[in-house]
Amino acid sequence: MRQRFLRACAGESGDCTPVWFMRQAGRYMAEYRALRRDHTILEICKTPRLAAEVTRQPVDALDVDAAIIFADLLLPLEPMGLGLEFVAGDGPRIERPVRSRADIDRLETGRAADLDYVGESIALARRHLDGRVPVIGFVGAPFTLASYMIEGRGSRHYAATKSLMWSDPSGWRELMERIVAVLAPYAASQVAAGASAIQVFDSWVGALSPSDYERFVLPHSRELVRRIQTGGVPVIHFGTGNAGFLEVFCRAGGDVLGLDWRVDLAAAWERVGHDTPVQGNLDPLALLAPLPELRRKVRAVLAAADGRPGHIFNLGHGIIPETPVEHVRAAVSMVREYCAEREACPG
Amino acid sequence: MRQRFLRACAGESGDCTPVWFMRQAGRYMAEYRALRRDHTILEICKTPRLAAEVTRQPVDALDVDAAIIFADLLLPLEPMGLGLEFVAGDGPRIERPVRSRADIDRLETGRAADLDYVGESIALARRHLDGRVPVIGFVGAPFTLASYMIEGRGSRHYAATKSLMWSDPSGWRELMERIVAVLAPYAASQVAAGASAIQVFDSWVGALSPSDYERFVLPHSRELVRRIQTGGVPVIHFGTGNAGFLEVFCRAGGDVLGLDWRVDLAAAWERVGHDTPVQGNLDPLALLAPLPELRRKVRAVLAAADGRPGHIFNLGHGIIPETPVEHVRAAVSMVREYCAEREACPG
Repeated sequence: MRQRFLRACAGESGDCTPVWFMRQAGRYMAEYRALRRDHTILEICKTPRLAAEVTRQPVDALDVDAAIIFADLLLPLEPMGLGLEFVAGDGPRIERPVRSRADIDRLETGRAADLDYVGESIALARRHLDGRVPVIGFVGAPFTLASYMIEGRGSRHYAATKSLMWSDPSGWRELMERIVAVLAPYAASQVAAGASAIQVFDSWVGALSPSDYERFVLPHSRELVRRIQTGGVPVIHFGTGNAGFLEVFCRAGGDVLGLDWRVDLAAAWERVGHDTPVQGNLDPLALLAPLPELRRKVRAVLAAADGRPGHIFNLGHGIIPETPVEHVRAAVSMVREYCAEREACPG
Repeated sequence: MRQRFLRACAGESGDCTPVWFMRQAGRYMAEYRALRRDHTILEICKTPRLAAEVTRQPVDALDVDAAIIFADLLLPLEPMGLGLEFVAGDGPRIERPVRSRADIDRLETGRAADLDYVGESIALARRHLDGRVPVIGFVGAPFTLASYMIEGRGSRHYAATKSLMWSDPSGWRELMERIVAVLAPYAASQVAAGASAIQVFDSWVGALSPSDYERFVLPHSRELVRRIQTGGVPVIHFGTGNAGFLEVFCRAGGDVLGLDWRVDLAAAWERVGHDTPVQGNLDPLALLAPLPELRRKVRAVLAAADGRPGHIFNLGHGIIPETPVEHVRAAVSMVREYCAEREACPG
């Protein structure tokens, strides 16, 4: 198996900076759109044959150094007893959002095994990939999941989430603990099925002040990361909009820090220390830029990493549907080209 | 006139930390909602009698240390030749968004005087307030205005904006220069009418990577700030989502740096240097918290400022409509109470 990605997760140098893309399996690819004509997102997630196929597509099309299992952050909400659906063009909807202490106390924590289909997809994707590249598993971070559970959908201000957090801290703690109680075995089942790393996505953490993150979120993220790490695979801890408190965010642990694009990678790496591997951080919209500008931006990210071991090239958030596939492929080539040049004229 | 606010803008100490709130005139107030039953946002903006009344309401209701003129960031789009309307519950819509170089070359820059109604509102508000507190004028920053002009509405990814910026840098420069050519005299007319300070809102700057901010935005923001400062009033430069590049943002100049709530105020002030006055940075959602939690958060912001001269207490973004007025009033009292205690036991 190609080792670049796992070596970088361990902070070791390799033959080239590894590259993969958040949401590399998705709507920007014609193969995926073709599948979506006949299947909903949830059907694809729950049908290992389809999920494994979608997981493999970008490896074939882009020659990336890792696959990430096709799944959704919100799948655990179903076995916790909340209904989940995806409304076309409008994103996820939670049928019975959490609004009270009674709702929290009703959340089920014993049915993580209902998510075993994700493990099956991982096992199948590994087989399809025939050991070419590792498969990354993932879970949402407790805050991001709690926000969805409370708001019931995407949110602008997170008013219901913050109100609950501030007005009922013990209910909030119970909610976060129940989420971790489901996510930890869910991540473990992904590892058991063959995931070589787990990424924890705290996609909405940028709604919080640094002190609220520290008081209400950090202990639970730290507990989740710790429990996943007992499985022996590296954990990538990724957040967006958290440039103001990366140092606090890092205290949750994890083997690799995922950066969004609103920080300079060199400055961020300096802040958290070069012994922590980092992943990132091209603006996902840069993939829509003309190729010379894209090249300039790809090289700027690589230059910011300065050839240090422990850098994984990625975007600062997921690929958007309007992205031309050729540009994503070109970005992979640009990373390889940069490494080859550096190899030829080191220093 | 109460001098706290202007003394803090100058980095001088005063009798108490001044306090005002972004969007303190707005939908969370019953008096404003009553007016909105009979008038659109644009009608209120364009009718000095109404705009001045709305501007004064929060000074009476909250006893804040400054008024901010009721207006909208997007008003300059009308005299630039783009149509503007507000769709109930859905925000602003630009009738003829800017999509091409031809659209940019067609933008009018000679009609800033069409916005003189804002100056009239300021003059009237000053008269109503009878010198109690200063009136702050404001403009949008060039990037935020350009984004609206290109996207035509609020945006999630700013795909059209970034595509234009990256694919046609000279068109982008022309666009930004035309925006500054309108905003500078518009701000000057507000100062001439009696505005004691001007705030420049870069509400959407958090979409950008630090290097794109530096290349494509900073020169134009700096030029705008410089031209406003020739009017002799302090300029508050406020951005959101820019915690990763505050140092670069600050290079645009301005007398006061406005901070959003995703940074620790003490850390941010340290980064930019204590000789730059700062404004902020309570999470606007904190106004929805139970009062003991609100008090804790208000005091944490004040403690982070550590009694240094040059701190203006404010939110990290605008008040949201669901906010209880009593809590806003309570926050003002909490600031005063903290100052009184500090006065009694300095230390």
